[in-house]
Amino acid sequence: MNWKPSAHPHHTLQAQISSWIAGRIEHGDWTSGTRLPPQRELASRFGVNRSTVQAALDELKADGLLESRQGSGVFVSGSAWNALLTRSQPNWQRHIRASVHKPNRHTIRLINGSEPDPSFIRLGTGELSPDLLPAKEFEDSLRDLRLDSRALGYSEPLGSLRLRLALCRHLESLGIFAKPENICIVSGALQALQLIAVGLLEEGSTVFHESLSYLNSVHPFQSAGMRMLSFRQEPQLKEKLVRATRGRQSLLYAVPTLNNPTGHSWSALERSHVYNVCSELRIPIVEDDVYRDLLFAPGLPPIKAADSSGQVLYLGSLSKSLSPGLRIGWVVAPSPVAARLADVKMQTDYGSSAFSQEIAAHWLESGLHQRNTERLRGELGLRAAFVQETLHASFRGLAEWNSPEGGFYIWLRFLRPIVDKSFFRLLLNRKILINPGYLYDPDDQHHIRLSYAYASYEEMRTGLEALRQEAERAGNC
Amino acid sequence: MNWKPSAHPHHTLQAQISSWIAGRIEHGDWTSGTRLPPQRELASRFGVNRSTVQAALDELKADGLLESRQGSGVFVSGSAWNALLTRSQPNWQRHIRASVHKPNRHTIRLINGSEPDPSFIRLGTGELSPDLLPAKEFEDSLRDLRLDSRALGYSEPLGSLRLRLALCRHLESLGIFAKPENICIVSGALQALQLIAVGLLEEGSTVFHESLSYLNSVHPFQSAGMRMLSFRQEPQLKEKLVRATRGRQSLLYAVPTLNNPTGHSWSALERSHVYNVCSELRIPIVEDDVYRDLLFAPGLPPIKAADSSGQVLYLGSLSKSLSPGLRIGWVVAPSPVAARLADVKMQTDYGSSAFSQEIAAHWLESGLHQRNTERLRGELGLRAAFVQETLHASFRGLAEWNSPEGGFYIWLRFLRPIVDKSFFRLLLNRKILINPGYLYDPDDQHHIRLSYAYASYEEMRTGLEALRQEAERAGNC
Repeated sequence: MNWKPSAHPHHTLQAQISSWIAGRIEHGDWTSGTRLPPQRELASRFGVNRSTVQAALDELKADGLLESRQGSGVFVSGSAWNALLTRSQPNWQRHIRASVHKPNRHTIRLINGSEPDPSFIRLGTGELSPDLLPAKEFEDSLRDLRLDSRALGYSEPLGSLRLRLALCRHLESLGIFAKPENICIVSGALQALQLIAVGLLEEGSTVFHESLSYLNSVHPFQSAGMRMLSFRQEPQLKEKLVRATRGRQSLLYAVPTLNNPTGHSWSALERSHVYNVCSELRIPIVEDDVYRDLLFAPGLPPIKAADSSGQVLYLGSLSKSLSPGLRIGWVVAPSPVAARLADVKMQTDYGSSAFSQEIAAHWLESGLHQRNTERLRGELGLRAAFVQETLHASFRGLAEWNSPEGGFYIWLRFLRPIVDKSFFRLLLNRKILINPGYLYDPDDQHHIRLSYAYASYEEMRTGLEALRQEAERAGNC
Repeated sequence: MNWKPSAHPHHTLQAQISSWIAGRIEHGDWTSGTRLPPQRELASRFGVNRSTVQAALDELKADGLLESRQGSGVFVSGSAWNALLTRSQPNWQRHIRASVHKPNRHTIRLINGSEPDPSFIRLGTGELSPDLLPAKEFEDSLRDLRLDSRALGYSEPLGSLRLRLALCRHLESLGIFAKPENICIVSGALQALQLIAVGLLEEGSTVFHESLSYLNSVHPFQSAGMRMLSFRQEPQLKEKLVRATRGRQSLLYAVPTLNNPTGHSWSALERSHVYNVCSELRIPIVEDDVYRDLLFAPGLPPIKAADSSGQVLYLGSLSKSLSPGLRIGWVVAPSPVAARLADVKMQTDYGSSAFSQEIAAHWLESGLHQRNTERLRGELGLRAAFVQETLHASFRGLAEWNSPEGGFYIWLRFLRPIVDKSFFRLLLNRKILINPGYLYDPDDQHHIRLSYAYASYEEMRTGLEALRQEAERAGNC
């Protein structure tokens, strides 16, 4: 033991000592159960302060190589060899904790993790039930698909021209007159938000969103360093936006038709007021219109249809009305903006699946999509009616709700503030998944986003009964 | 004109003045050609400094609302109404300039923008020619596809279980023994790098890469705020890495088999040296192995096959060996790391296309993929031989090159330093696209990444002849 640490530009004395001791253990010089000399003695042999030795030993104890036995000193631990193995791995947990992107919220991760287990009843899922997906028609349509080999390569930055042309016709039916160069194909609306966040905003920009907002449950803007502020429909909207932006870049995100989670749609007056205020302040609007195809009766036109100034970035998707598995959505934007988003997308994933794009184009062109959404509206209407009947029969006095105008959701309000994490947990233990209101408004304790789109009728019946029982119990506490 | 600006918490005097003047024009009070009062007079009427008036007028001139006529003052411009319209749009260029994500490099954008035009000859493209893609076999295989309707929904965070099981068997043939929970499906290897950048590294982390590196042509790490440093194979590697990381998080990225752009593969000694150094320093390795399927003769096993400590994140993809349009790749990693990458992916795009995943699983399970890569290796070998013959016939004395061992590329070195932006431009004007060496090493002026994978034989002949002419001309200057 005549080794001594020495001054070194990159290795502290402490690191040299702990790595020297780990080396003794690794080479088998010091076996499990070996008693180390007292700290004072080590300090004098190494020619360092006692506190340096102590720090090195503490580090090795934390790593499991050494252990203290009360009153009798420090020993090489029984599991030192295992600990050595672990020590040689990268510290992945530290990598994950320190990294740039936020983890999904804990409740969301519990939901995501439980969803693949078919024994769970999913009362909150924003997704069509497997029964509602046109699997058979998809199989048939694949037989009709003719693949140009160019379509199997990397796609153009904006995405498949065939799909963009089909979308131009689709958008025309909504009053939006776009050219192919105004459309950027994306892998779903969430990716569009990611691209907008990093492609059009600087760190510290302000993103306005409705107080009940999907953006509280996902973090594309927050992870890119943007500041989130909620807005309400009110006469003083302009002044509030001016005050909040303080001259910094900003953007307003909204779901004016069939809001997620509330199902609410804006009035014509609300649409034009927000548009005019944002126009005047030159604040871009992101109009997320992914639920439009699922309106039970024709609704108001998109804000984008009246956008004369290129103010509105319009998002659409096939995830809600055809199949989430396609991962096909689109952004309609002024052409330089579409090109910018496409450039960032190319750097992110080199474009969306060519197969998905071909399938999507085929469904739009052939009228299959149109027929499928008509069928879906009918089936979702029946499901919505069923859930409302069940609510009428068992939730009166316990909760209140509105009749949905389309989409997937009823924004169910419990009269008492019972919807907290433990309520979510109670139902999770009963294998029932709900989407609590606090995912959409951190202060909410009254609501759940009740989806009639995913669970089977039988599951909805069972799930709602369990929900009622837990809600009554929670309300009586 | 009795209006005056006043002190206001959110609007400067200058902004109030310019917006008041714009209002006069907008309301038609001041028509095109109207001469404004002299600055001195305006300053005294508004009760502000002359410099404030001047700044407001300059702003309106920059926006095209006003114009100066020499010697006679400031006027409402002829195009003021058009300018007003533009003024009401968001300033998209400012949004784009200030945003988080870097634009693609200019040369890359020129390449991306020209590629869709079939009249260009693509001598640099890292992509299989449409002739080499199995379009017919794809069409046939779509007919055999049975779609479970669960497969059409959002996928599990890690991706389709069926595909992950098929990949486990595929990886076993490479000596990598992974379980499904070690695999995260991604939309191509570039997306894997994005997820690693934001999911496992903090801002300011160091990413080591080979001095000739694909990472100089794309920016997943740079855009997330990481520091890029190149490394070489050398005995002092360990000391250099220690010095460069300075205790900060880091990661080493390499393409040890068929490097992009050079086509070079590491020796067994190089593989174990880098692995051992990184193990000791606990630096994770990202092993990008997307070209392996295209080795003309069996190569050395992946570093991952000898990874006992979970140090290596292994990337594979079907983009190079089957179809880029599928957008299917994978990361093999310790399960907590795979779960973390899957969580970030869910927040980014809710998973990869279910259709692409089903098609990929079908091709791997059925042996179609295996047979297709055998065919490809044969065809690429013939193409490589053809290009080498052409080089022998016309490029001796002008350039030098190695015989490729697989993949797409010959790293062609011109004897004189002629490969700069103007050389790229000259060929672009002749409708020939090359990938200049400076995309992979900013200081390089000697090389191009010559691809024999994309252009037809006839195009390769024509393109190489044009390249020879321009190279001779440039060399004689």
